[in-house]
Amino acid sequence: MEAAARVICDRGYDGASIQEIAAACGLTKAGLYHHIRSKEHLLHEIMNYGMDLFEEQVLREVMPIVDPVERLKECMARNVRLVTRGWSKEITVILHEHATLRGEARAQINARKKRYVRFLETSFAEAMRDGRIRPLNPKVAAFAFLGAVLWIYKWYRPDGAISEDQLVQELQNVFFGGMQTSLTTTAGAQQRPHTTGERAQ
Amino acid sequence: MEAAARVICDRGYDGASIQEIAAACGLTKAGLYHHIRSKEHLLHEIMNYGMDLFEEQVLREVMPIVDPVERLKECMARNVRLVTRGWSKEITVILHEHATLRGEARAQINARKKRYVRFLETSFAEAMRDGRIRPLNPKVAAFAFLGAVLWIYKWYRPDGAISEDQLVQELQNVFFGGMQTSLTTTAGAQQRPHTTGERAQ
Repeated sequence: MEAAARVICDRGYDGASIQEIAAACGLTKAGLYHHIRSKEHLLHEIMNYGMDLFEEQVLREVMPIVDPVERLKECMARNVRLVTRGWSKEITVILHEHATLRGEARAQINARKKRYVRFLETSFAEAMRDGRIRPLNPKVAAFAFLGAVLWIYKWYRPDGAISEDQLVQELQNVFFGGMQTSLTTTAGAQQRPHTTGERAQ
Repeated sequence: MEAAARVICDRGYDGASIQEIAAACGLTKAGLYHHIRSKEHLLHEIMNYGMDLFEEQVLREVMPIVDPVERLKECMARNVRLVTRGWSKEITVILHEHATLRGEARAQINARKKRYVRFLETSFAEAMRDGRIRPLNPKVAAFAFLGAVLWIYKWYRPDGAISEDQLVQELQNVFFGGMQTSLTTTAGAQQRPHTTGERAQ
């Protein structure tokens, strides 16, 4: 999956031949066709592989966390780490491709992605109901979270000035340090009592 | 530029022929070559066109704003609106393409993009120095801002449940409502006095 993803990213989906992909996987063309039905099937499998990694390393681990804010924070930490080292750049790029798959394969991958968005929306809504974060639109919050996290592959260099741990902590601070009504995460800050209907609208 | 961008997005850069691009622009191939030197030159021009729109409608308008937090908020509002209606989806996609241009053209576009990142970093650093926002890493803040804003093209539908104005306001709330030390933007919230060195580290 990783080797095939690399070829597809380098050459583009249209540009990558099955011959090249097979060679990169150390297989003959016939050998590759033993595992996949078509190039589109391969792309679909790569996307499912990326989503498997995501669900194993992020979603499955954080879903049981009872506290919605802790759940979202841990989810952010794990997703950041998946982008910085769990997923290869190629898998990330392919997961971000939206228009290449068609029909049922596309619908199936979209359903897996939507499950994540729904999980985030539900967790934000729950955190709001509990008075843990300020009133906000859960959908905008979910996609702001996703945008900030998934964008990392475009700019972050693991050998640069910002460590992975620092990246996780800073992003959590930008998002949650402020959104929480009780500012318990900010050392030295005053406790702000929970007020309902803070923002009239 | 818009017509050419549409063809390149539909067919992929490698898949789009100069013939097709010319036809989409209502030109003959010779007519198109009157304006551009090569397909790569055309791609470069499309990117510069997108960056021109951005600089005219966002950067130039917000740079004179003295208050760094107001500057960043207005910048977010204007950039959101550029993604939702100023840039076509195709221009957005092409601006997000990172690997297609080579050599000097690539360096030139990257320099224009970096100018924006630097502007955001500087504004966040200034807001911090003034005690207007909590201590944070300006680079992480800048890219979290960019990720959340530029990701919009992937999920936002102008005819959906969230209006443009609501999208702007919600994103500003997620980012700034919490980051500001004095919570003046949140009606009904208590003022939290500015404390320096809030987060020991």
